[in-house]
Amino acid sequence: MFSTAEPTEPTEPTESKRDRTRALIVATALRSFRERGYDATTIRRIASEAGVSVGTTNYHFSSKNELVQEFYLQVQRAHRAAALPRLESVRDLKERLAIVFHTGLDQLTPTHGHAPEFLTAAVSPRSSINPLSSESNASLVIVEDLFRTAVDGADHKLPRDIAEALPGALVLAHLLLAMYWVYDDTDDQAKTRRLLDKGLALFAVTLPLTRLPVLRRPLRELIDLIAEARSTSPTSAVG
Amino acid sequence: MFSTAEPTEPTEPTESKRDRTRALIVATALRSFRERGYDATTIRRIASEAGVSVGTTNYHFSSKNELVQEFYLQVQRAHRAAALPRLESVRDLKERLAIVFHTGLDQLTPTHGHAPEFLTAAVSPRSSINPLSSESNASLVIVEDLFRTAVDGADHKLPRDIAEALPGALVLAHLLLAMYWVYDDTDDQAKTRRLLDKGLALFAVTLPLTRLPVLRRPLRELIDLIAEARSTSPTSAVG
Repeated sequence: MFSTAEPTEPTEPTESKRDRTRALIVATALRSFRERGYDATTIRRIASEAGVSVGTTNYHFSSKNELVQEFYLQVQRAHRAAALPRLESVRDLKERLAIVFHTGLDQLTPTHGHAPEFLTAAVSPRSSINPLSSESNASLVIVEDLFRTAVDGADHKLPRDIAEALPGALVLAHLLLAMYWVYDDTDDQAKTRRLLDKGLALFAVTLPLTRLPVLRRPLRELIDLIAEARSTSPTSAVG
Repeated sequence: MFSTAEPTEPTEPTESKRDRTRALIVATALRSFRERGYDATTIRRIASEAGVSVGTTNYHFSSKNELVQEFYLQVQRAHRAAALPRLESVRDLKERLAIVFHTGLDQLTPTHGHAPEFLTAAVSPRSSINPLSSESNASLVIVEDLFRTAVDGADHKLPRDIAEALPGALVLAHLLLAMYWVYDDTDDQAKTRRLLDKGLALFAVTLPLTRLPVLRRPLRELIDLIAEARSTSPTSAVG
């Protein structure tokens, strides 16, 4: 995803030293994003705290937003690590989706105070840190794979085409839920958890209806169009 | 909504002259928002184009965002003027909602090129031009009243409590549709229109099911929680 080697670099540091420096920059940046938020985290500040030069930081990451992508990846890897073990013993589709959605919110929780800043920086379809941008695809694919695992491993009775299309729309539902969560000023964002549980309860009740032909076709078409929100133009580089 | 009279102003201009100046500033600002977008529109530029001093502009509007509120009001008044006549001869609920949603998108269409900027400026729950902020309430109430008119004047068979709660959730659906529209890079945002039509088709098919007690209660609770996205804390003044 990122070019970590510059072909014009005159003296290449050894692989291991370069990797260690890169890991240090990433760890410093992620801590700063968590603790200070997006706006107050700058390349200069990261370099200073990591004890490296701005030039070294720029050698590894050409912009702050490339470090945000590392942040996204870390969040979604933690999401996957939290969800997969809990999925092992559960077969009910609603319960499996609840696990993926709730563990997703768990990852976001520590950053709630800084969430409006991130939303502002990421919401434009022209932003390179928009979750739907091609730059963010690796993180979003982790979430989509989780939803696919949840659907595929469930003993549901969904029509096959609906089951196949569903994860693509659930990713968007996850992003909308995250947006509702940014706006949620209740303690521990309890309102968002309630919305999620109520939404899943309604989903479980309506699930058997998806086999009705009169519902199945418009539902399938709607799911496809929701998932199509992802197929936006390539974003311009916003640093 | 705005204090147009400053009590400390030493020489009060006559009411009519003050009103004319204010109207001129508003008209100039709205044209600029439409043509140049949010970022490139500044108080200084508005004053220069309106042929008044920056001080005069500040006397009427303490920030650019107060002028954005005038922009929102103009858009929603045009929305209402476009929707109401078309509602007169239609009784079907789906068709009536289609009119309100489509005429809403019609108002936005000329500003699509600048929409990402507005989204960025407005999306934070801390932004005074967030559509859900208390500052934006007068505009949002116009949209909610339109949806209420659409529901109340339809020959639907919705349970009464669902019918009463629905407009509050439809306002949020309208905002989400507008967000999808910002991301839509198809010609004339045709994909958004398709999503709307497919969504309404599914709504029409599922409408009779809302009378089933097993569906009615979770649906009602979900509608209430969606509408609750509006009840955020008071926003800080962001100019």
